[in-house]
Amino acid sequence: MTETDPLVIFTPSGKRGRVPAGTPVLEAARMLGADLESVCGGRGICSKCQVSPGMGQFPKHGVTVAENALSPVNAVERRYDEKRGLKPGRRLGCQAQILSDTVIDVPPESQLHRQVVRKAADARAVEMDPATRLLMVEVAAPDMHAPSGDLERLNAALAAQWEVPSATAPLPVLGRLQRALRQGGWQVTVALHQGRRDAAPRLLDTWPGFFAGPLHGLAIDLGSTTIAAHLTDLSTGAVTASAGVMNPQIRFGEDLMSRVSYAMMNPGGAAEMTAAVRAALGDLARDIAREARIEPRAIVEATLVCNPVMHHLALGIDPVELGQAPFALATSDAVSLDAADLGLTEINPAARAYVLPLIAGHVGADAAAVALSEAPETSDDLALIVDVGTNAEIILGNRAKVLACSSPTGPAFEGAQISSGQRAAPGAIERVRIDPETKQPRFKVIGCDLWSDETGFAEAVGRGGVTGICGSGIIEAVAEMRMAGLLDASGLIGSAAQTESERCIADGRTHAYLLHAGPDAASPAISVTQGDIRAIQLAKSALYAGARLLMDRMGVDRVDRVVLAGAFGAHISPLHAMVLGMIPDVPLDRVRSAGNAAGTGARIALCSRAARALIEANVRRIEKVETAVEPRFQDHFVAANALPHATDPFPELCKVAPLPAVDFGAGADSGRRRRRRGGDAN
Amino acid sequence: MTETDPLVIFTPSGKRGRVPAGTPVLEAARMLGADLESVCGGRGICSKCQVSPGMGQFPKHGVTVAENALSPVNAVERRYDEKRGLKPGRRLGCQAQILSDTVIDVPPESQLHRQVVRKAADARAVEMDPATRLLMVEVAAPDMHAPSGDLERLNAALAAQWEVPSATAPLPVLGRLQRALRQGGWQVTVALHQGRRDAAPRLLDTWPGFFAGPLHGLAIDLGSTTIAAHLTDLSTGAVTASAGVMNPQIRFGEDLMSRVSYAMMNPGGAAEMTAAVRAALGDLARDIAREARIEPRAIVEATLVCNPVMHHLALGIDPVELGQAPFALATSDAVSLDAADLGLTEINPAARAYVLPLIAGHVGADAAAVALSEAPETSDDLALIVDVGTNAEIILGNRAKVLACSSPTGPAFEGAQISSGQRAAPGAIERVRIDPETKQPRFKVIGCDLWSDETGFAEAVGRGGVTGICGSGIIEAVAEMRMAGLLDASGLIGSAAQTESERCIADGRTHAYLLHAGPDAASPAISVTQGDIRAIQLAKSALYAGARLLMDRMGVDRVDRVVLAGAFGAHISPLHAMVLGMIPDVPLDRVRSAGNAAGTGARIALCSRAARALIEANVRRIEKVETAVEPRFQDHFVAANALPHATDPFPELCKVAPLPAVDFGAGADSGRRRRRRGGDAN
Repeated sequence: MTETDPLVIFTPSGKRGRVPAGTPVLEAARMLGADLESVCGGRGICSKCQVSPGMGQFPKHGVTVAENALSPVNAVERRYDEKRGLKPGRRLGCQAQILSDTVIDVPPESQLHRQVVRKAADARAVEMDPATRLLMVEVAAPDMHAPSGDLERLNAALAAQWEVPSATAPLPVLGRLQRALRQGGWQVTVALHQGRRDAAPRLLDTWPGFFAGPLHGLAIDLGSTTIAAHLTDLSTGAVTASAGVMNPQIRFGEDLMSRVSYAMMNPGGAAEMTAAVRAALGDLARDIAREARIEPRAIVEATLVCNPVMHHLALGIDPVELGQAPFALATSDAVSLDAADLGLTEINPAARAYVLPLIAGHVGADAAAVALSEAPETSDDLALIVDVGTNAEIILGNRAKVLACSSPTGPAFEGAQISSGQRAAPGAIERVRIDPETKQPRFKVIGCDLWSDETGFAEAVGRGGVTGICGSGIIEAVAEMRMAGLLDASGLIGSAAQTESERCIADGRTHAYLLHAGPDAASPAISVTQGDIRAIQLAKSALYAGARLLMDRMGVDRVDRVVLAGAFGAHISPLHAMVLGMIPDVPLDRVRSAGNAAGTGARIALCSRAARALIEANVRRIEKVETAVEPRFQDHFVAANALPHATDPFPELCKVAPLPAVDFGAGADSGRRRRRRGGDAN
Repeated sequence: MTETDPLVIFTPSGKRGRVPAGTPVLEAARMLGADLESVCGGRGICSKCQVSPGMGQFPKHGVTVAENALSPVNAVERRYDEKRGLKPGRRLGCQAQILSDTVIDVPPESQLHRQVVRKAADARAVEMDPATRLLMVEVAAPDMHAPSGDLERLNAALAAQWEVPSATAPLPVLGRLQRALRQGGWQVTVALHQGRRDAAPRLLDTWPGFFAGPLHGLAIDLGSTTIAAHLTDLSTGAVTASAGVMNPQIRFGEDLMSRVSYAMMNPGGAAEMTAAVRAALGDLARDIAREARIEPRAIVEATLVCNPVMHHLALGIDPVELGQAPFALATSDAVSLDAADLGLTEINPAARAYVLPLIAGHVGADAAAVALSEAPETSDDLALIVDVGTNAEIILGNRAKVLACSSPTGPAFEGAQISSGQRAAPGAIERVRIDPETKQPRFKVIGCDLWSDETGFAEAVGRGGVTGICGSGIIEAVAEMRMAGLLDASGLIGSAAQTESERCIADGRTHAYLLHAGPDAASPAISVTQGDIRAIQLAKSALYAGARLLMDRMGVDRVDRVVLAGAFGAHISPLHAMVLGMIPDVPLDRVRSAGNAAGTGARIALCSRAARALIEANVRRIEKVETAVEPRFQDHFVAANALPHATDPFPELCKVAPLPAVDFGAGADSGRRRRRRGGDAN
């Protein structure tokens, strides 16, 4: 390039340099490293390389752009404009040639590695860089005098036109290649998968001629209780559809340890559970593709996050080692495999799956996904991230250090082992307030916007009536009972003189608090029993003790902020959690819900190879703490049994519902969040 | 290392250097790059590292070895000697420590990369370097305070103890790893596969503790008519068992083009043929393992050679493109895949397969294997290598250049399209002599050592009698007829006055020569008809024209030597082939049979990764000539129609049977050669 060549400046990247006059804008972008998308490789077909050329004075860049800085609109662009419409001022980067100094703006939709900004205030941007992308190539026709295979000529074309190293092709893809090439007149669009930038790419599929896409991926959060999947557009990161199903392994055991026991007691039991979960994954993928009206073939990738037991069962590994110390994992690193091997058989048959790495024997890929989503290693202040479920995964960290453990909270937070407990579903009490003076309760149930003392509540609740109390409801009930003086610090109901109330009913040798008597004598009463209080105390003590253990290890006695992750976490009232002593005290505005952070982490890994590399490196750096063998865990557990706050610790703050779940990109998972709410993401 | 450290010299490699006193011999070998085998990694278990220490004066090396140059025989060595026996003077390299200057001889069986010398005079040595090897490792037990997966700790151990990069594990292997590690008390022997030295290794299997092996591989020669397999010991290169079956695709068409037609005419026809050949491959592998009493799990690799049509059908690729110009291959490079994908399901489930590269649309991996076995690129003189079958693959070359083509000889050489033709099987005439004076024939049939004019022939042939004439028989018959004056140069029977003979019988408007009348009037007579002569003329013209075309391209009108490859080639009489004009004239002692060179090439590729790399590079360098569109091929074809030699062109030379087939290593394929003889390896 000489000083007389035109100067071209790309915005917003700021990449600049001189290119020979006549260079197409797309070519210039490649030469200068500016990020400009193209699938057809400059053939004027895909229209992905649209740019907005500037004109006039650009003092910031020290450039004046003449009217004819680019070649005139040509026939290809006119035809495209007539057929599909080109926004005013837009040009096709592969057609417009640079004739003199110019400034070219690349709009977000034309950026290959566009940044998808997550909605939450503290969220990082995710740069789109999925492992699979579409590339159109023009392949040389076969020449019997210089014989070579179709695949080898395709690879030569990919190298010449896209600078891609030689790709391998699974047999079924290889078997279809020759037809695609001939149908497309030696032009073909390929889906090329390259999980790591240093790995040989793999041909996942071929389409004759130009295939516009988009390709899709499935971000799967495989929980013990529910399985959720987000169908994600691999070019924009947007969620196209979401769906969830119950984990069919529930029939082998409600919680993880009962499934490990099932594997231990029954020969072939592990294989049976593997087959069940793979079948469910397959059904879920098929259904979500149908629902979104997506060609299953366009789903070329999946990411999977799950706890270690689900991880082993999904991969076909006997989980019995996870049931006893030293809780040895069969493999802890990220696993790349054929999606079909996980039962995802009704998407693209060559689709690949990526399973996030595990952190430790009890701290799974779901926790790694939370770490990827919440990025504690980039936090200036000390963040405590808690993913509440049957097991709680707890992460504590900042830029200096990140620690992780899991704590066996048991199923009480999910409504199990609670006398009137139930899963979060319509009819379940989810919010509770108790008047400190009258000791009278009021509550809200899922599926009804009215409080129980508001007019029309009974009608609004409808025939199903009030059916029980879910995890967030029992937490609020116990905390409100404590603040209303119905409980003492040890958790005993009705021990203090002032708690005498018609609602405190003798229940054997203890008392129970009547939340809801039911419309008639036949209806079941919903009470909080002394046993319920003990179950919640055990669960919250385990959670708190885990957090304390990490704080000890970190050498701190307070944290700067708390993040409640998981579908359940999104529904916990931070105030009540703190009254209960579930989480260490922090100012109420420093408690945030991260929604289904594990699912978000799965989506980030789906959209970004850099994120995969990042979490693979980070899980190695995370210090693992094994609660099961830490003597201090027991000490903390016992000490945490009391209910610390007799009154609202933050009376000055507004007691509102928690923050909405965090989302990134054009999320569309509200429906799904509703379905799963209160579900176990553990 | 300082000048006072002991000097150690390894023979026969000549590797030498100083090591600290007390260094075990195995460790010293590693430090100095001497080739010393070990599977157990120096634990005194595998006994693979046996060495013969020298003693006394070694003037050649300038060293005097003292009696106590090595540490005394220790308890491990004594125990091994008592249990298994140690040859006199032998030491275990992992136990014997170097105390002062010493000379250590590594016997061939202790060399990892031992050279296996092929039997034939001009053969190269093959250095054992298979893709899969056994390694014993001691893996760290899991530590819950530093959690990591079994696989990750295994990889760390492989890196530390064997300097091997991280291996991946297919899911089923991963699923079995934890049990093997625990059963072996954290010692485990792994079968590690690394197809290319720069590729990530792959864990194929694990055994608790020490597993002595050996591992086996299958070298498969997949012909249109027969499929042959050699079970090969991957540590010695020796053939343990051989077997062959008919290719079940014969029911879809005898020759390749009729199978291509079947695929073209019948939807799903290609898939049907793929399923048939994969089932046959699976059966063959299962049977050979049973016959050799080998644990199928010990068979961890396979190599496959075949022509392009069989290649595509085995890989599940529609072969129709190979039926018409430009004969475009779907892929031409070597293919590495799971052996199970080829139907090899009853060997080790994680076994890998390597399919040799194709040379051109008509010149297959079988020809590449012949090139690997015969190595024309290392030949000082100009070698013509001919693999005769339904198609003849022809290679011409020397150090300067190698050319290849295939020529459509048709099935006449296999006894098809011959009036009394049949496959090479008991009862078929395979040798023919005709007395030039009396015009009376004598012959030999397969399965009988007597000539037809010897006493007891009829009894020896037995009830089956003489059933027909096979390829080598018809070639000799036609050549002998020409030498006896029964044919003129144009191939006409009985045209010359002197050929009047009772054996020349009018046959419509032409004549036939009666070879065998049969014991009674009811027996079918075996004659050579004018049509038979024409069929052989067409076939041999095609073969010759292909060779001539390559000679033209090379700019020569003679070759220095001829190699007849293929099972059929091993049975052709060079003299008669030359009388017929099948091959260019060379001195008779410059014609050699290479036996089943394609199968040998498959075995070489099984034993040596370097050989795989070599043939992959060489097929690119081979100049391909497409006979189907070369106008000169037609010219040569027409010109080659005549029968050049009216008499034996080399009367001074002994007319013996061809040389025995070439073999390398401890071959044991004679049984198999018998089964396949005359079979089509094309």
